[in-house]
Order: sequence, then structure tokens, then C-alpha cells
Amino acid sequence: MKLSDGVEWSLHCAVVLASLPSEATLPGSALAEFHGVSESYLLKHLKALTKTGILESVSGPKGGYRLAKQAEDITLLDIVEAIEGTESAFRCREIRQRGPACLEPSAYKLPCAINATMLQAEQAWKAALRRQTLSDLVEHLGNNLDPRAIEKSGAWLQENVRC
Amino acid sequence: MKLSDGVEWSLHCAVVLASLPSEATLPGSALAEFHGVSESYLLKHLKALTKTGILESVSGPKGGYRLAKQAEDITLLDIVEAIEGTESAFRCREIRQRGPACLEPSAYKLPCAINATMLQAEQAWKAALRRQTLSDLVEHLGNNLDPRAIEKSGAWLQENVRC
Repeated sequence: MKLSDGVEWSLHCAVVLASLPSEATLPGSALAEFHGVSESYLLKHLKALTKTGILESVSGPKGGYRLAKQAEDITLLDIVEAIEGTESAFRCREIRQRGPACLEPSAYKLPCAINATMLQAEQAWKAALRRQTLSDLVEHLGNNLDPRAIEKSGAWLQENVRC
Repeated sequence: MKLSDGVEWSLHCAVVLASLPSEATLPGSALAEFHGVSESYLLKHLKALTKTGILESVSGPKGGYRLAKQAEDITLLDIVEAIEGTESAFRCREIRQRGPACLEPSAYKLPCAINATMLQAEQAWKAALRRQTLSDLVEHLGNNLDPRAIEKSGAWLQENVRC
């Protein structure tokens, strides 16, 4: 089981966009350059983040991406699900209804206990992601980064931001 | 993000093996037939479950698979990790160390906050899977199944079990 690289990229991009002045935007090419990742792949993810209402895409010479809402109103689950979709990781194929001991389909009214238990465990993961907002992450990242990296990032962003 | 079908198959097989009399075994072919799944794929998963000490493979005419320990000592996490491996779903590629604002590698002594937060959320999922044992699942499944399915399964297993 693996989350796509797009989740890591999107979380980093969201943190960068959360640190910009209100209304300011950053083009996808700048976000790709800043993170040293493929621009074409990143644009696909930025599109998904826009479609799900996390980012806003502004067109024109001052165009680029910005957060579509406050960082405290965006959860990590929003970002993960924008990239990975909302389908559960465990996909029940109802194999209890196959083989020599199966009954007619109407005999399986109650959900399979294996499916129910696996989905319940997944809910614990989703709840943990839902408890963390983008603004928590920005704060946490700021505390873990070398002050020189913050300064260098700030200078680079100032040159590339569009307002 | 998706767990492989092998996780569902393995959980169902483990439940069946937990319901056999002590020391009894069931061949892989019978487990595949009972669940209506591909024998060759299932054998791959049964091998993984054996390698990680969840199942025991007995050879000879009375051979087949059985649990290697008590059902209450096997957690759902044991089974999931036997199939999916123990690597985390979120794989940090350290993209913070790329791009125009990066510093020398020694400047990144503290773990990336994004990685730490994502792994923490994953731990909630793993903890939920660790709290559930195979014997909990057997009990839960028994409560959710039509009594006729239990009876029909029991009769089929009695014909195919090896002791």
C-alpha cells in the first residue's frame, strides 16, 4: 500500500501557498521549481487540488495558484483525498458470497465483518488526518526548519510571487 | 491508495483456519476453492503468511495450512503487514532538500514535519488494526453470518479438512 508522491508534493505546495500574503499567487512552474519536481506531474495534482476546492487557479498575467480558503479550514485529509480519491484502501470483493458454501445473495444482508473491521481501522487514520489542519502543519514545519532555510525560501518566494 | 486483494483473501483464510480443530490442516487448493479465488495467487499469499509466522505449512498426505499460533495472538496488523509489508504508505522523498532554497544536507537534522505528521496518522490506523485479533474477527463474523452459511461451511470443511 502506497500513497502517491503527489500527496507529498501537494502537502508541500499547500504549505508554501499558506505562507504567501493574502491574494498573492504562485505559478505552477514556480511551485515545481521550488520543490525540484516535474512541472507536468505537479500541474496534474494542482488541478486536482483546485477541483476539490482547496486551491484557486487565477488566470492572467498575475495568475497562478493560491489557497481557496483559510489554512485552518483545510485538513490534511482534504489534501490526501484530493489526490488519492475518497475510496477506501480496503476494497471488499464479497468473497464470502463465492465458493461451495455460499447462499443466495439475499442471505448477506449484514455487512461482512472483515470489511467492517478494516473500514473502522481506516477511519482511525482518516480521523487523525482530519484533526490536522494546514495551519497546524505550517506551524509545525516552521519549528522544524533551519532558520536559514526559512529565510532563503522567503527571499525566493518574494521574487516569484505575483500580487 | 489501495490494499491488495490478497489482504481480503488472507483475512478470510485465517478466519477459516481459526475455526478448524487444533492440529487440523486445509490444503491451499481447498482454501482457494472455498473462497472462489485463484489458487496460484492465493498460494503466494499463504506463503507470505507462513514466512511471517502466522501460518504453518505441513507437508505430506495430511499436509496443508494451519495457524502457527493461537487466533488471539494474531492481530489484523500481522496479517495486513504479512501481505503488504511493513513500509509506511507515506514515503517521504525529502523534497524539502531540493530546489533553489535548499541548504546543505546537514541542515535537515529534524525530521520533515509533513513526514512526521503523515506517519503519526498512519500509526492510528496501525494501532486500530493491532487492537483487533483474529479471534475477535471470528466472533464478529459468526454474529454477522446467516446460520445456514455457517452450517454449510462447516459441512464442506469437514469433508476437506485433514487431521
